[in-house]
Amino acid sequence: MKHIITISRQFGSGGREIGRRLAQALGYAYYDRQLVVELAERTDLAEDYLQRIDQMDPVPIMPMTFASTFTQSFDPVADMSQEIYHKQSELIRDLAERSDCVIVGRAADYILKDKHPLRLFIVADDDFRMDRCRLKGQVPDDMTDKRLCKEIRAIDKRRGRYYEFYTGQTWGEATNYDVVINTSQIGVDRTIEMIKHLVLHWNGEYEGSR
Amino acid sequence: MKHIITISRQFGSGGREIGRRLAQALGYAYYDRQLVVELAERTDLAEDYLQRIDQMDPVPIMPMTFASTFTQSFDPVADMSQEIYHKQSELIRDLAERSDCVIVGRAADYILKDKHPLRLFIVADDDFRMDRCRLKGQVPDDMTDKRLCKEIRAIDKRRGRYYEFYTGQTWGEATNYDVVINTSQIGVDRTIEMIKHLVLHWNGEYEGSR
Repeated sequence: MKHIITISRQFGSGGREIGRRLAQALGYAYYDRQLVVELAERTDLAEDYLQRIDQMDPVPIMPMTFASTFTQSFDPVADMSQEIYHKQSELIRDLAERSDCVIVGRAADYILKDKHPLRLFIVADDDFRMDRCRLKGQVPDDMTDKRLCKEIRAIDKRRGRYYEFYTGQTWGEATNYDVVINTSQIGVDRTIEMIKHLVLHWNGEYEGSR
Repeated sequence: MKHIITISRQFGSGGREIGRRLAQALGYAYYDRQLVVELAERTDLAEDYLQRIDQMDPVPIMPMTFASTFTQSFDPVADMSQEIYHKQSELIRDLAERSDCVIVGRAADYILKDKHPLRLFIVADDDFRMDRCRLKGQVPDDMTDKRLCKEIRAIDKRRGRYYEFYTGQTWGEATNYDVVINTSQIGVDRTIEMIKHLVLHWNGEYEGSR
């Protein structure tokens, strides 16, 4: 069976960067929301992509995966029908069968439950998340901290709604994941190192131990 | 400043074993609820103990730290006055200043907040926790799973009440910790290895990085 890492994350916690760099460090394929949405919508693109996966194992990170921004709105009811969700879910299951991979978002932890992925949830304190958003140039200069904090929480609320709408589980509830990491003190680099160590040992000598 | 690891844990998740073995692996002192309670109550014992710490750094695990069992009852209101809590808190701060250490329970993450401990919270699924309790011989043979599950949850409820009573924070809320680990899939051994790796790298090349 392939090795699968799923990542859910609070906005601004560094979860997406952790996913991308972890995939790179481990030589796993990397998929995020943007890519899954694109592939599920454009059948021709998906076929090309799946063919590429079959030729190379694992898949390199594709240039298509671009940064998420504040301007994206997402609402489970307005933006997506159940049919699209099912199409995306099938695609995610298909991708997860083709190569070792890291999948960020899209309730992949739930969709792939029977494949026993390593389920990560990345969180951070408000201050850390605001700093990170500003540092990445995602925030207009004149946006106050109060407003920014509100925007960040609104994005999380949408993520939570999406997750809960399709899974019936609570987004961010510790027992739904294997490791929940708060990057505020540990930081992104240490998180990647720690998870890489866990995965490399998992595949090796620790297999099956309790 | 000393390196401090605090561990909060759901009953039956393996958190206490993780704390003890992590302390052993890192050469840190190990303190759990039992020891803190004993030391805070018996001044003569505390003096002896603190003297031993001053002579040896770090402190070996003391034979006093025995296993918690179902028979212990704990209620923040009935069993403990604010005065005893403050005495325990002072002792915890004192211990944390004397050597690198692992402290399990006693809201140590909150008490030592200004010392920036590595704050762990260990959780596990109900099935894992029930298996673990039975395996450790803590459960009467005739106790049903339903009853056992109820007992386990009642213990957690008391732990949560204690924590919330003294800290005003929510027990188990992800952002109050640095790493929350679900041992159900990862297991106790891998958790120890992962955290050991994090700590050893923290003190080394990762210092100060984000």
